[in-house]
Amino acid sequence: MSPQGVPTTSGNSLDPWYGAYAARTAGLAASEVRALFAVASRPEVVSLAGGMPFVSALPEELIREAADRTIRESGPQALQYGSGQGVPKLREQILDVMALEGISGSADDVVVTTGSQHALELFSKLFLDPGDVVISEGPSYVTAMVIFKSYQAEVDHIPMDEHGLIPEALREHIVALRGAGKTIKFLYTIPSFHNPAGVTLSWERRLEIIDICRQNDILVLEDNPYGLLYFDGPPPQALRSVDEDGVVYLGTFSKTLAPGFRVGWALAPHAIREKLILANEAAILSPSSFSQMVVAQYLDQADWRQQIDTFRGVYRERKTAMISALEEYLPSCAWTDPNGGFYVWLTLPEQLDSKAMLPRAVTELVAYTPGTAFFANGDGRRNIRLSFCYPTPEAIKLGVRRLATVVNGELDLLDTFAGTGSLRRAPDRAGYTAPPPDLS
Amino acid sequence: MSPQGVPTTSGNSLDPWYGAYAARTAGLAASEVRALFAVASRPEVVSLAGGMPFVSALPEELIREAADRTIRESGPQALQYGSGQGVPKLREQILDVMALEGISGSADDVVVTTGSQHALELFSKLFLDPGDVVISEGPSYVTAMVIFKSYQAEVDHIPMDEHGLIPEALREHIVALRGAGKTIKFLYTIPSFHNPAGVTLSWERRLEIIDICRQNDILVLEDNPYGLLYFDGPPPQALRSVDEDGVVYLGTFSKTLAPGFRVGWALAPHAIREKLILANEAAILSPSSFSQMVVAQYLDQADWRQQIDTFRGVYRERKTAMISALEEYLPSCAWTDPNGGFYVWLTLPEQLDSKAMLPRAVTELVAYTPGTAFFANGDGRRNIRLSFCYPTPEAIKLGVRRLATVVNGELDLLDTFAGTGSLRRAPDRAGYTAPPPDLS
Repeated sequence: MSPQGVPTTSGNSLDPWYGAYAARTAGLAASEVRALFAVASRPEVVSLAGGMPFVSALPEELIREAADRTIRESGPQALQYGSGQGVPKLREQILDVMALEGISGSADDVVVTTGSQHALELFSKLFLDPGDVVISEGPSYVTAMVIFKSYQAEVDHIPMDEHGLIPEALREHIVALRGAGKTIKFLYTIPSFHNPAGVTLSWERRLEIIDICRQNDILVLEDNPYGLLYFDGPPPQALRSVDEDGVVYLGTFSKTLAPGFRVGWALAPHAIREKLILANEAAILSPSSFSQMVVAQYLDQADWRQQIDTFRGVYRERKTAMISALEEYLPSCAWTDPNGGFYVWLTLPEQLDSKAMLPRAVTELVAYTPGTAFFANGDGRRNIRLSFCYPTPEAIKLGVRRLATVVNGELDLLDTFAGTGSLRRAPDRAGYTAPPPDLS
Repeated sequence: MSPQGVPTTSGNSLDPWYGAYAARTAGLAASEVRALFAVASRPEVVSLAGGMPFVSALPEELIREAADRTIRESGPQALQYGSGQGVPKLREQILDVMALEGISGSADDVVVTTGSQHALELFSKLFLDPGDVVISEGPSYVTAMVIFKSYQAEVDHIPMDEHGLIPEALREHIVALRGAGKTIKFLYTIPSFHNPAGVTLSWERRLEIIDICRQNDILVLEDNPYGLLYFDGPPPQALRSVDEDGVVYLGTFSKTLAPGFRVGWALAPHAIREKLILANEAAILSPSSFSQMVVAQYLDQADWRQQIDTFRGVYRERKTAMISALEEYLPSCAWTDPNGGFYVWLTLPEQLDSKAMLPRAVTELVAYTPGTAFFANGDGRRNIRLSFCYPTPEAIKLGVRRLATVVNGELDLLDTFAGTGSLRRAPDRAGYTAPPPDLS
């Protein structure tokens, strides 16, 4: 195309279509996590940044067999378009998975999605008008907040402690937001093995939070990717187990099987379920029949509960390696000690800035996600999310040691400039981000 | 949950969350096509309604082998999250596919999506503000219009004739819309083997339409699912082949391989490509690595060009069966005679109403899609989309014969009431919907 053909009236030199985007597109920026992927993928870097499950713990033979049976037994269906709601057999099997967390429901109310991420997207599209508020833990899952922002909603963070979201704070925020004329559309929460905070909402608080949301007509969006990946006994039952009319529950096979299939689901009250199906059909016509049927074959043929036990063992060992390394190398910091999931939430000594420190960490060949990525409001500068899901225990130990070099280097710099030397021995342990290691 | 727990202040008895949906959700209703699926799936009904490719023409062995090799050779990658842009190798292979339609581009500008449907969704999310206008052929693809409406945009239909979209009409509509203060965001077009109209935009008009859009700073969204499925010689080269800065091109493997993988793509100018990746990541994190890599293996190992020839042969035979049956049984109607794709567009005699007639057709065990489904403005009452992609030639003949029974029955009714008998011999052939069969 000749330069003359490039529109200029509404464009700029970098993007001739700059003026044509929707207002919501202004909020769609590359996340801090995304920018890290390029760095963290270099082999010499120990990445404690990503959230990739350790899929090599899954015997490939099981998947080869499931794929082969799928094509042999149901080729034409697996290759064809399917229902916008998902494969009926898989929706039945999903009920068995959810039953492990105390949920009873109907396969009619399950909608299969392209990972639970797409359920988040579809749900947000259905509910969020510009200016609406989503209340959520602070910190919260990065890419959920990206979606909320992409629909021009605001995120209001509710503080947590070692028992998860603080009910009294939730009450106060609801009153304050409504007092300010805001429309609260839903509570987005990850009650078990929170990403990134690593904490789990206690049973008593689950009941209390459901009660608060009922009283205030606030829908609950329960995101539970990690609930089955516990280390020392299961977490409390799902929020959905105590409220089927006010909770939309999101689940996924990304962590208990493999993310490469992109098979997740929503369990929703009838009317919302119906709208989720319509939104799913508009977005993708139908979820991949092939992926769904391979997952269904796997669930049918393999001992999937045993496989989850295998994953639990892998992640338990890695979590233990991380906590040991933190105790050994980073006594100046505080951290959460999760009973499941993928993440430890670290609090640096006062005056350190995890985002500013990141380039130095990369120089030392360790990568992490700065805490600011998990807040919509700029908080989290003293925090770091460390993931223990993917690297080996040895790599985790090496990574934490490298991180300690960085942190201690920063502290030495501070000492030099401040001349007091007091910072290293006085980490601030106030607030949800920093329960003492021995208590969490 | 007790009934007391159901919120009532903002709800109603059917949906307690009725008052909580976003404004855009009001536009999300079940399409007429969707409602037909339940009916058309009964085995005794000949369905000329759906758009399901005939995947049984694809040797299952090729897919079993591709899946097996994918897991054996690249298991950990296939089971893992991937890039939000898609697998690099597949993006290179997509260039080879597009080259068949005259497109040259860089794999850097390809974004793999969950079917080309999701590219439509992501593109619409990026560009459409409430009240914006999408200009498009009339009729147009149903589920594209569902998406546009879901972002509160309006569709303005440009008339077509047997050579596709009419450039002069496009010019007039642009002037009229802008005169009325409307914001035109893009032209959505299916230039080859249009769904549902069956017509193909001529080469001269392609150049003219690109020229009009350049002059008016209007982005073109070229949707090309059927271009490689021609019967008697290929269609003109893609719009994207003559304008790389002003055209976003959508392609898919749903018709040339199988829809069950949900693998499609967008080829876009750099800046738009970058935003599509961000939107893709927000929506689904990354497209299915497993699906993408199986498709890549297939393209690598199988003679995929030969397989497309096989599909062409299947659909050519079915199209011929449909046209022959129409000539034999429905001389009172007019229709398009497509040189590729899946669809014939039928025009009924005056005063017949395809939507009102549908229950009677189902009684006669034939299903079709009423023309109104393909217009945003209520037009299309005299039209029917007949699909020849899935049923056998014998079933097509039977289906058209049943349809003739319905049409003739309706005409007899009209004759009885009108007492003139003139309608059967005077179908209205004016306008784009009814080129004489011998010319198209």
